[in-house]
Amino acid sequence: MTSFSHAEYKQRLVKTKERMTQEGVEVLLITDPANMCYLSGYDGWSFYVHQMLLVMIDEEQPIWIGRGMDANVAKVTSWLYHDNIIPYPDDYVQSTTKHPMDFVANILKEIGQSKRTIGVEKDNYYFTAKCYEQLKLGLPNAVFKDSTNLVNWVRIIKSDAEIEYIRKAARIVEKTMYVGIQSIAHGVRECDVAAKIYEAQISGTKEFGGDYPAIVPLMPAGKKTSTPHITWSEDKYTNGMTAILELAGCYKRYHSPMSRTVHLGKPSDKVKDLASTVIEGLNAALEVVKPGVACEEVEEVWRNTIAKSGFKKDSRIGYSMGLNYPPDWGEHTASLRQGDKTILQPNMTFHMIPGIWYDDYGVELSESFRVTETGCEILANFPRELIVKEEVDPLEPLFFNKNVGA
Amino acid sequence: MTSFSHAEYKQRLVKTKERMTQEGVEVLLITDPANMCYLSGYDGWSFYVHQMLLVMIDEEQPIWIGRGMDANVAKVTSWLYHDNIIPYPDDYVQSTTKHPMDFVANILKEIGQSKRTIGVEKDNYYFTAKCYEQLKLGLPNAVFKDSTNLVNWVRIIKSDAEIEYIRKAARIVEKTMYVGIQSIAHGVRECDVAAKIYEAQISGTKEFGGDYPAIVPLMPAGKKTSTPHITWSEDKYTNGMTAILELAGCYKRYHSPMSRTVHLGKPSDKVKDLASTVIEGLNAALEVVKPGVACEEVEEVWRNTIAKSGFKKDSRIGYSMGLNYPPDWGEHTASLRQGDKTILQPNMTFHMIPGIWYDDYGVELSESFRVTETGCEILANFPRELIVKEEVDPLEPLFFNKNVGA
Repeated sequence: MTSFSHAEYKQRLVKTKERMTQEGVEVLLITDPANMCYLSGYDGWSFYVHQMLLVMIDEEQPIWIGRGMDANVAKVTSWLYHDNIIPYPDDYVQSTTKHPMDFVANILKEIGQSKRTIGVEKDNYYFTAKCYEQLKLGLPNAVFKDSTNLVNWVRIIKSDAEIEYIRKAARIVEKTMYVGIQSIAHGVRECDVAAKIYEAQISGTKEFGGDYPAIVPLMPAGKKTSTPHITWSEDKYTNGMTAILELAGCYKRYHSPMSRTVHLGKPSDKVKDLASTVIEGLNAALEVVKPGVACEEVEEVWRNTIAKSGFKKDSRIGYSMGLNYPPDWGEHTASLRQGDKTILQPNMTFHMIPGIWYDDYGVELSESFRVTETGCEILANFPRELIVKEEVDPLEPLFFNKNVGA
Repeated sequence: MTSFSHAEYKQRLVKTKERMTQEGVEVLLITDPANMCYLSGYDGWSFYVHQMLLVMIDEEQPIWIGRGMDANVAKVTSWLYHDNIIPYPDDYVQSTTKHPMDFVANILKEIGQSKRTIGVEKDNYYFTAKCYEQLKLGLPNAVFKDSTNLVNWVRIIKSDAEIEYIRKAARIVEKTMYVGIQSIAHGVRECDVAAKIYEAQISGTKEFGGDYPAIVPLMPAGKKTSTPHITWSEDKYTNGMTAILELAGCYKRYHSPMSRTVHLGKPSDKVKDLASTVIEGLNAALEVVKPGVACEEVEEVWRNTIAKSGFKKDSRIGYSMGLNYPPDWGEHTASLRQGDKTILQPNMTFHMIPGIWYDDYGVELSESFRVTETGCEILANFPRELIVKEEVDPLEPLFFNKNVGA
C-alpha cells in the first residue's frame, strides 16, 4: 500500500544518508510528518501526538516510534519491517509526568545509539522545546546537531514518480479553481463557496481521488483582500467586490497550489492596474526560469518588471513545494527572494505567488511550476487573468476552448 | 468582527493573569494558535510561520507579533489596539540567518520586559526547540518557566457564549454524519464520501456556516478499521465492510466531534458484540458524568462495564475539547483515563470516544458532552447504534422521527 516503490524509498534514504555524512550526523531524529512520509511512506493524521522516525547512518531501515494505536497505520502505509515499528504506551500521551521523548531516549539507549552525534529538526513544528529538553536529559552522552530541513533539501528535487503525483494535483486544482470561481456570486456566502471548493478538491477526478491540502482554502474578499491568510466566514459576496482564491489540489500528499482573483462586476482602474502589473511581473519571472538560474535572479526580474508601475512588494514571491502536511505546503527550503542563491535544477517545483495587498484591496495570481531541462512547465492550465464576473459566467467559453478543468 | 464581546476577552485575560500570578509568571509568550485566538480573537491560517501573543501581568492588553502580511488579519479579527500589533519583516520568514524569535526578544527588551519571569508553552507544536534557543540567547537576563497548557486550563470551562458556538457545531456534525453515512455504499470511493462530508461540514446550515475542523475526517474502513488515524483513499467501500467515521462540526473554531460505525450488509457476531459492548460502556460512562466526579471515575465505570464482555481498551476514552486549530481539536488538559483526577465542573466539554480497534476490525461510537449543573448534555442528537446499511437506507425513518440532521 505504499505510494512509491521500495526502491524509491531506498534511494531517498541513500540521499539522506549522504547529507548526514556531510554534516557529521550519525543518527537523524525526524519529526516533520512530510519527512517521515518521504522516507518511510507513513501517512496518518497522528502528528498531533509526538512521533518520530529514526534514521541511523549504518542501518538499512529507519525505525518508527509512535503512539500504540498508530502502529497499525505504520504497518499498513510504510515499507518498514514490522520489527522496526515501535509503539509507546498510551499513558505517554499528553501526560504531565512522562514524555514520549523519554521513551525515544530509552530506545536509543537500548539499541546502542545514545552516544552518537544526533541530528534533530530544531525548527520543525512537531519538535517542541520540551521534546529537545527531554532528549537532552535522557541522552547526556549524545552530541546534538541542528538538522532542520536536512531531509527537506533532499526533497527539493522530485523524482519522476513524484512529478506524476504533482501533475495529478494540478488536474485537481484546475477543476477546483473552476468550481470556486463559478460558485462566487452576489449574495452567496463565503462558506458555501468554500464547501464547493472542498468537494472538488477531495473528490478529485473520476480517474483519481483528491487528498486534503496542507492549507485550507484562503479566500479573502472585499476589504479582507488585504489579509492574505484569512479563511472564510458567513459573509456574502456582493457586486463590486474583489475576491481572491488561493487553493491547492492535492494527490497522495503532493500539492499543486494556485491563486486567482475574481471581480464581481466592472473592476476599478486601480484593481485592473494592479492585476496587470502582477500578471506582467509573473509572466516575466516565469520566462526566466531554467536550470542554472538562481532563485534571487527570478525575483529580481519580477521586481524590475513591476518597478516602473510604481507598485512594490516586500515579501518573497514564491517557494519550493511538493509533499506536505498541515500547516504548510511550502517546503521551507528555497524561496524566490532577494539573497536566495539556490540554483534552479530540473524537477524542482515551486509555487510562484506574487500577491500584492494594500490596506483595502489586493490581487493574487499565482502559478506552480516544475523546472525542466530547458525552462519551466506550468503545472496547471488555467487562464492567467483577472477574472471579471459580470452577469453571464465569463469562464464557460474559456473552459470549452481550452479544454481545462475536465 | 471579533467572535465574542470585548468584555469576554477581558474576562479571559483576567483569568489568565490569575494563573500567571499563581505560577509566578510575569510575561506569558503564547504560540498556541487556539490560545492566541482565545485571548485576542486573532484568527488566520498563519501559524505556519512563527507568531506570538505576549501577555504582560501589568498591561491591559496583549501584544501580537507576527509576519508583516498578517498584521491586517490581526487588525480585522482581534480586539487589540492597532499599536499592539507589531509586524516583523518578511526576511525573517524561514531564513537561515535570522529568526522571528530574535525579533520578539528585541521587542521585549525595548518595552522593558527582558529581565522578568517569562512563561513559554514548551510543549506546544508551534514553539519549536529553535524558538526557545533563540529566546534564551536574546534574553539572557530573563527567567524562563514552562507554561505549557496554562491558558488551556483557563479554556477548560466554557462561557455560555462558547457553549452556544459548540451547540452550533453539534448541529453541523449531525448533518455531516448523516450525509457521510448516506454516502457510504458498495462501490463508492472513500474520497467521494470524504468530499460529501467536507461539503456538509463547511456549508453548515442555512442559518450559520461551518468552519474547518482541526482534524480532517478520519474514515478507516475494512481492514483499515484497525488504524484509527488513517484518512481516506481511492479505495471503494464494498459489501460486508465495517466503516468508521470520526468527524466534527466546527463553528468559529469551536468543535463538536462524533464518531459512528457503519456496516454494509449483515455484520458478523464479533462486530455486533464489539459494538454492543462499546455502546453499553459509553452509556454507563455518560450516565455517571456530573459536577464533582473525577475524570478517572468516569473511565473506571467504562472499564468495569466492558470487563465482563472480555474486551479491553488500554487508551484513554476521552478528552476536553472546544476551540482549536490543526492538528488537534483536543485541549490537552483533562483526559478521561486512569489517574486523571480533574474534577468535572459545569460547562466543561468533552469528547468521549471509547473506540476499540483490533488488528483486522474495530468499532468507534462517540459522543461529545457538556457537563451541566446536575449531569450531562449530549451535544449532538444522533442514533447511538451500529448503523447497518442493507439495501434500503436504514437512517431515513430515524431521521424523520427524531427530526435530526435538518
